[in-house]
Amino acid sequence: MTDSAKENHPSNQMWGGRFAAGPDAIMEAINASISFDKRLYAQDIRGSRAHAAMLAATGIVTDSDAAAIREGLLTVLSEIEGGNFPFRVALEDIHMNVEARLKEIIGEPAGRLHTARSRNDQVATDFRLWVREQCDAAMQGLQALIGALLGQAEAGAGWVMPGFTHLQTAQPVTWGHHMMAYVEMFGRDMSRFADARARMNESPLGAAALAGTSFPIDRHMTAEALGFDRPMANSLDAVSDRDFALEFLSASSICAMHLSRFAEELVIWSSAQFRFVALSDRFSTGSSIMPQKKNPDAAELIRAKIGRILGATVALFTVMKGLPLAYSKDMQEDKEQVFDAADTLMLALAAMEGMVRDMTARVENLERAAASGFSTATDLADWLVRELGLPFREAHHVTGALVALAEAKGCDLPELTLAEMQSAHAGIRQDVYSVLGVHNSVASRQSYGGTAPDQVRAQVVRWRERLGEVQ
Amino acid sequence: MTDSAKENHPSNQMWGGRFAAGPDAIMEAINASISFDKRLYAQDIRGSRAHAAMLAATGIVTDSDAAAIREGLLTVLSEIEGGNFPFRVALEDIHMNVEARLKEIIGEPAGRLHTARSRNDQVATDFRLWVREQCDAAMQGLQALIGALLGQAEAGAGWVMPGFTHLQTAQPVTWGHHMMAYVEMFGRDMSRFADARARMNESPLGAAALAGTSFPIDRHMTAEALGFDRPMANSLDAVSDRDFALEFLSASSICAMHLSRFAEELVIWSSAQFRFVALSDRFSTGSSIMPQKKNPDAAELIRAKIGRILGATVALFTVMKGLPLAYSKDMQEDKEQVFDAADTLMLALAAMEGMVRDMTARVENLERAAASGFSTATDLADWLVRELGLPFREAHHVTGALVALAEAKGCDLPELTLAEMQSAHAGIRQDVYSVLGVHNSVASRQSYGGTAPDQVRAQVVRWRERLGEVQ
Amino acid sequence: MTDSAKENHPSNQMWGGRFAAGPDAIMEAINASISFDKRLYAQDIRGSRAHAAMLAATGIVTDSDAAAIREGLLTVLSEIEGGNFPFRVALEDIHMNVEARLKEIIGEPAGRLHTARSRNDQVATDFRLWVREQCDAAMQGLQALIGALLGQAEAGAGWVMPGFTHLQTAQPVTWGHHMMAYVEMFGRDMSRFADARARMNESPLGAAALAGTSFPIDRHMTAEALGFDRPMANSLDAVSDRDFALEFLSASSICAMHLSRFAEELVIWSSAQFRFVALSDRFSTGSSIMPQKKNPDAAELIRAKIGRILGATVALFTVMKGLPLAYSKDMQEDKEQVFDAADTLMLALAAMEGMVRDMTARVENLERAAASGFSTATDLADWLVRELGLPFREAHHVTGALVALAEAKGCDLPELTLAEMQSAHAGIRQDVYSVLGVHNSVASRQSYGGTAPDQVRAQVVRWRERLGEVQ
Amino acid sequence: MTDSAKENHPSNQMWGGRFAAGPDAIMEAINASISFDKRLYAQDIRGSRAHAAMLAATGIVTDSDAAAIREGLLTVLSEIEGGNFPFRVALEDIHMNVEARLKEIIGEPAGRLHTARSRNDQVATDFRLWVREQCDAAMQGLQALIGALLGQAEAGAGWVMPGFTHLQTAQPVTWGHHMMAYVEMFGRDMSRFADARARMNESPLGAAALAGTSFPIDRHMTAEALGFDRPMANSLDAVSDRDFALEFLSASSICAMHLSRFAEELVIWSSAQFRFVALSDRFSTGSSIMPQKKNPDAAELIRAKIGRILGATVALFTVMKGLPLAYSKDMQEDKEQVFDAADTLMLALAAMEGMVRDMTARVENLERAAASGFSTATDLADWLVRELGLPFREAHHVTGALVALAEAKGCDLPELTLAEMQSAHAGIRQDVYSVLGVHNSVASRQSYGGTAPDQVRAQVVRWRERLGEVQ
Repeated sequence: MTDSAKENHPSNQMWGGRFAAGPDAIMEAINASISFDKRLYAQDIRGSRAHAAMLAATGIVTDSDAAAIREGLLTVLSEIEGGNFPFRVALEDIHMNVEARLKEIIGEPAGRLHTARSRNDQVATDFRLWVREQCDAAMQGLQALIGALLGQAEAGAGWVMPGFTHLQTAQPVTWGHHMMAYVEMFGRDMSRFADARARMNESPLGAAALAGTSFPIDRHMTAEALGFDRPMANSLDAVSDRDFALEFLSASSICAMHLSRFAEELVIWSSAQFRFVALSDRFSTGSSIMPQKKNPDAAELIRAKIGRILGATVALFTVMKGLPLAYSKDMQEDKEQVFDAADTLMLALAAMEGMVRDMTARVENLERAAASGFSTATDLADWLVRELGLPFREAHHVTGALVALAEAKGCDLPELTLAEMQSAHAGIRQDVYSVLGVHNSVASRQSYGGTAPDQVRAQVVRWRERLGEVQ
Repeated sequence: MTDSAKENHPSNQMWGGRFAAGPDAIMEAINASISFDKRLYAQDIRGSRAHAAMLAATGIVTDSDAAAIREGLLTVLSEIEGGNFPFRVALEDIHMNVEARLKEIIGEPAGRLHTARSRNDQVATDFRLWVREQCDAAMQGLQALIGALLGQAEAGAGWVMPGFTHLQTAQPVTWGHHMMAYVEMFGRDMSRFADARARMNESPLGAAALAGTSFPIDRHMTAEALGFDRPMANSLDAVSDRDFALEFLSASSICAMHLSRFAEELVIWSSAQFRFVALSDRFSTGSSIMPQKKNPDAAELIRAKIGRILGATVALFTVMKGLPLAYSKDMQEDKEQVFDAADTLMLALAAMEGMVRDMTARVENLERAAASGFSTATDLADWLVRELGLPFREAHHVTGALVALAEAKGCDLPELTLAEMQSAHAGIRQDVYSVLGVHNSVASRQSYGGTAPDQVRAQVVRWRERLGEVQ
Repeated sequence: MTDSAKENHPSNQMWGGRFAAGPDAIMEAINASISFDKRLYAQDIRGSRAHAAMLAATGIVTDSDAAAIREGLLTVLSEIEGGNFPFRVALEDIHMNVEARLKEIIGEPAGRLHTARSRNDQVATDFRLWVREQCDAAMQGLQALIGALLGQAEAGAGWVMPGFTHLQTAQPVTWGHHMMAYVEMFGRDMSRFADARARMNESPLGAAALAGTSFPIDRHMTAEALGFDRPMANSLDAVSDRDFALEFLSASSICAMHLSRFAEELVIWSSAQFRFVALSDRFSTGSSIMPQKKNPDAAELIRAKIGRILGATVALFTVMKGLPLAYSKDMQEDKEQVFDAADTLMLALAAMEGMVRDMTARVENLERAAASGFSTATDLADWLVRELGLPFREAHHVTGALVALAEAKGCDLPELTLAEMQSAHAGIRQDVYSVLGVHNSVASRQSYGGTAPDQVRAQVVRWRERLGEVQ
Repeated sequence: MTDSAKENHPSNQMWGGRFAAGPDAIMEAINASISFDKRLYAQDIRGSRAHAAMLAATGIVTDSDAAAIREGLLTVLSEIEGGNFPFRVALEDIHMNVEARLKEIIGEPAGRLHTARSRNDQVATDFRLWVREQCDAAMQGLQALIGALLGQAEAGAGWVMPGFTHLQTAQPVTWGHHMMAYVEMFGRDMSRFADARARMNESPLGAAALAGTSFPIDRHMTAEALGFDRPMANSLDAVSDRDFALEFLSASSICAMHLSRFAEELVIWSSAQFRFVALSDRFSTGSSIMPQKKNPDAAELIRAKIGRILGATVALFTVMKGLPLAYSKDMQEDKEQVFDAADTLMLALAAMEGMVRDMTARVENLERAAASGFSTATDLADWLVRELGLPFREAHHVTGALVALAEAKGCDLPELTLAEMQSAHAGIRQDVYSVLGVHNSVASRQSYGGTAPDQVRAQVVRWRERLGEVQ
């Protein structure tokens, strides 16, 4: 029931007349969308109010009819928001429910609202407005999370921890540096939602069923009223396009992937074996009799959410695969997937922000872990190359020998004497110690974007400026 | 809150004591599962009643305590089914809600129910019972759909329609044969659900948190009481396994794929260009002013449902990827996906069954389409090979010449005279006409499983026997 | 073998020494990437040449060493492009293969190339350059396809065809309008690839293993030399990020979805029942004996390609899910998925462009189909509302009566006499005929973006300007 | 080019004649499958030999022709296996390549092989045979992996390690118990492949293009010759079904999920923080200068492989979604996905088996970790319930007090004196110590499937019997 003919009616009573049997329970169950698309009520009313204003401005309906419609829609809005609206499944969807109620409230003029419009462009407009808001919500959630991460990064710009590859300590890095890596990821997520928002910000309204209309409508006027940058350029595309939903889902999936990586780290870091971080009680659950056990429930749930969001993405791609133009009923499957993915993403962002704000780095454990395993051996090798001009192969040979010596002595590299150092290569000087030890190591990584505390603080400053937090 | 320590308590009040902050709104939103897992109430109560009976039989609790528990659980059940049960979000999940209510009803003995059990094996048992029922439901839905298809096949065993490859007519087939192809598909689906059911039919109960228990429980007794074939053999596996859900989802995805193929055909066949089939008004919507327009809404929605089910499948696979043993909170994400996929599948099966029962083949249109495009040219070529012993190349050369002749005359192959036939190859005899024409063509395809009406009827009989519909 | 220590060596011989067993056949099979990452040879050499130039400019290596390296790399390049390069599986990947060969060619200085670099930032740089090129290739392929569609749209701006909803004729539209709907879709795809390209255009080079380096490198210099807008801001992120691949895959999936919709239409339109379009022999296959059968193979294969691309997308999301920072070997799975998806997309775009250029609309069939089913009934109803001010309900009642009359007479709406028209509503005037008939109908849809031929031509002009095809 | 007409020809030369243009490079690139389907050569030849034998037995071809065909096919087979076969892209696929070569070898009789057969049933047969072999290969790989796990389980039936929930120690378990959990998972995988194999083991051969054939073929004979249980019952289904591939992929995805979980554990257990396990040098890579760093490359790659396999599964589901019967060219996309998934699975199983055989549990570390965190507190609480009849709430209160006491003293629970114990509850007796300490804890979990060493050994014995390893 999506072609313009049917959509000119506030309920399916009229066309229902020609059906002998009438939709039975199964058909109602598979067909009606009001149970979920009522979430679009605000967008639907906003779109209808803009449409009514335009119909009056272009002389298609009278000013008084338009005024009655616009006023009546506000009444409907307040009924819905007040919880007093009688949603009816027999009216199938939010559009019919609103229109039928409007008719009850204002009578005859309600019938003129649907002039030069169809449910096809109406639902496309409503849903696009809703997804656009979710882009904004995602950007806000990301900004808050980045704010929390910047706080952690600033506090721990100089705290040393292991930099892992393969979950094996590779080189020391700083806590702040690690936090800032996620700031970069979530920052890209922000820009991805911004791009998606800009691309989707075109108005389908006025495409009517699919072909446009012969009424002298002004699509630029409704586009502007609804905050769209412009009307969509092709009416067939306007009613059959769901790119905006897919792009939102794709961006959400990437964001959820970032969240899953951070959540995985928090779960591992919370283990008794790592003890890198203490999560707050708010986001954990404990045991009444095992005081050290604190389950990182929120982190685990956040880690899992990529499943849900990626699943929704696959679902909508699969639905859209191979659909001929313009509108097919299959497309009604778009909303629940996007609703659930958006809710999930916003909740996961909020929970992660809360966890990040609350969590406490166990600074001593981090540093101890960073220092184990001769993690500055590469600093020593680099020093040999840089300062003594040794070729890599020889630098590594010398380093290997010194590591073996330290291992035999049961000490770390900085605890070897200069003489011991020189036994491996006579050219080694006192200033080799300036790169050994984890603090020296990180301080030396001064390359742009490197882990040196100064570099980390510079990253924080750049981000605060970018977010407008610094004047 | 899944380890055995915590689970021995009816609410999180006890362990909550050690948390300064307490879970706030975000945590509650992401953590609580009662909004969806209340669907497991019947399974939860059934599992608990079996557990209580076993605790008494093994002497772990007294008979009177067990009797009170079992009776009290029936009261809880009737409260829930009567709509009088006070679900509380603060109690997080269905297990805690049931247990807390039981305590209110029977007092002290309620606390003994959780002996030798944990929420980990409890939820695994409940969910497995639920999924097992869905396997049964799927098999029933499939059987009903197959029944509808058998009806169509029997009626139209002799109706001729185009057999398509690439959506181009390749050879004539019968309507019944086409219907029976779907019977085969849905029959495989039935056997897939049967296999999944058999594989999942093992009891996790008694695995406790993960390690088993030191109480002298009898897992075989509870397994039998719950209709399981046996207890699961490894307690770690029992609480960390979600294969049964994934296998149900995978089987559902294959079934949904079959449905999508049939639904696509119905959409195409309903088009004004094809007009192969008339769908009933029950499963279509129309236009008040365009009498021939009848939108195949139900078919389109069924076609789309694979998106939802495949999405759920991807979601759960993604959740389970890389989870260490035994239980992680991530696994709480399993239920909503399976609930939604199961609901979707059952609805789609019912809607398809209804559509199949109601639909009317437009027999004349089918036959006319089958006869166009020289669709029996291959029958002619085969006849030349079979009867005259021509090599294929020559048979095709002769056939091509005759098709060209018919095309030039504007007639179909059976309308060529024998003399015209013999102009292309002198050996052609009168009985060549026995394979030309679409009815002759299909009648000649007598190979096992072929499209000849007799073969189709034999397929129908075999299926009726298999389904126990014939004595 | 990805941390900086190991990566300072041209082969795994050195560190292999400490392994008693040595990697056996299974490990080599699962571990070595040279079989696929050799596709990155040009990017690898380009990156290394930029790195060498920077090492010299900053005084880290001598000018003569850098010159030898840069020259030697050109030799390696010409060997590979000439097919004379001895790829060795024992050297695992393209980076080691190039470096080892460089050493054979120029000797000692080759060892200095890897200063202040790691395989981690090297592979991130190479792969990013490769994906960036694919964004460009996708934009080119899309532009060519849009060009082909513009040609079709221009030719058929006035050809009338059915506008479908639910694969049922809803209203007449123009061929050009339908083509332009795809131009909009593919145009959004272009902008999506452009956004992805801009976001990924940052240089990981200089991130070293993960922490940055203590060598005084100039990351801005290498970034500029490689056409990047800037260096990446965080070294951990630089080596652990695969967003650029995921965003490329997501954009490709959306594009592949568009292709699948168009391909589906071409398959349906090519059927004997529709006969809306004739595909060229180039992109079809036929039957030697059934002259009318022409299988739309290319369209079917294009329709299927979304499977492959979406599958690759799911694959990489699943791989990245839950990976701790910075580099894990799992990430080696990124390349084959992206390679295959990119190849698939470019091929599908080229094939679709070819099909569109070659295809012939069957204009008469299109128009005949557009006119059937009282497809201008909504135009009549709209006229009654617009010109006579009837409420919708009454307009539909009148229209329904006239459709019934026409159906009874066996004619179409425009063939009713004015008297017959007036029998349904006395106010109907002669000029009602100006909106009846499919040509009048489409001409009247003058709203912005509507299907009127003038609107379509305006769309074409805007697109030609946008693509720079018009001065 | 899949309908029976075309398939009767060894190349596309014949039907190519009616195409003005001829397929160009793009079409060849998108259309030809020989580059990948040549992997089906052995199945193709086996199927053709069975078909030829049947054609002779039924008198459709002469015995001497059949003998020539069967002999010639063996020659083709030996050419391919000897690497001397001239694969030609112009012949598109393996079926045409084999048939054309057969013709070159034996001349005229080669043309009779394609009697009563089509490429549609031929490719379905070949591919089904190939997938059936992969089911066998998967079962073999799984059996070998289970064998390796049984070895670990037997050796470490009594080694104590932490049983985790939420990656937090919950209760002590045994190493053998943990290994046996995976045995259960991989055992289910075996049964899933066995079920898939049984369901797919039906012969499509004789379905011809889609409708069956008028030749008096014996489908049961070819089915038996190829090891199928029976011919497929419906010829349309036989050529359009790809369930067998989807079920193989689904079973592979579940198996890959299990592998990813175990691989994740191995990566975590290999970290410096856990040190639960030492992986062999065969399946790791190291650092020349950081002796303790050993990257678990193989484990990481195995963990990632679920991406690839799940991606292939999604790909094929997406391809099959909404395809009308019988054959569409889209289905050519089935093979590469399944080939890659099967290769990936077999490699991952072999690599995991190798890792399991080689890995060494660090028994002391495991036990130390198991004992930390008052991991036997639940044993104490259970003892209080079981032996003293305390309600849970009180048992937990007492336990909490004793844990607090031990924490204050800096000792573990078994190190509290009996007097200290009794200070919390006077009824505590000496035999409480029998459940404290990790060895006592695990020994007490004697419930069926529990972690007690005896239970683990019993599990091992049952599995050895099941695998036929014990008489």
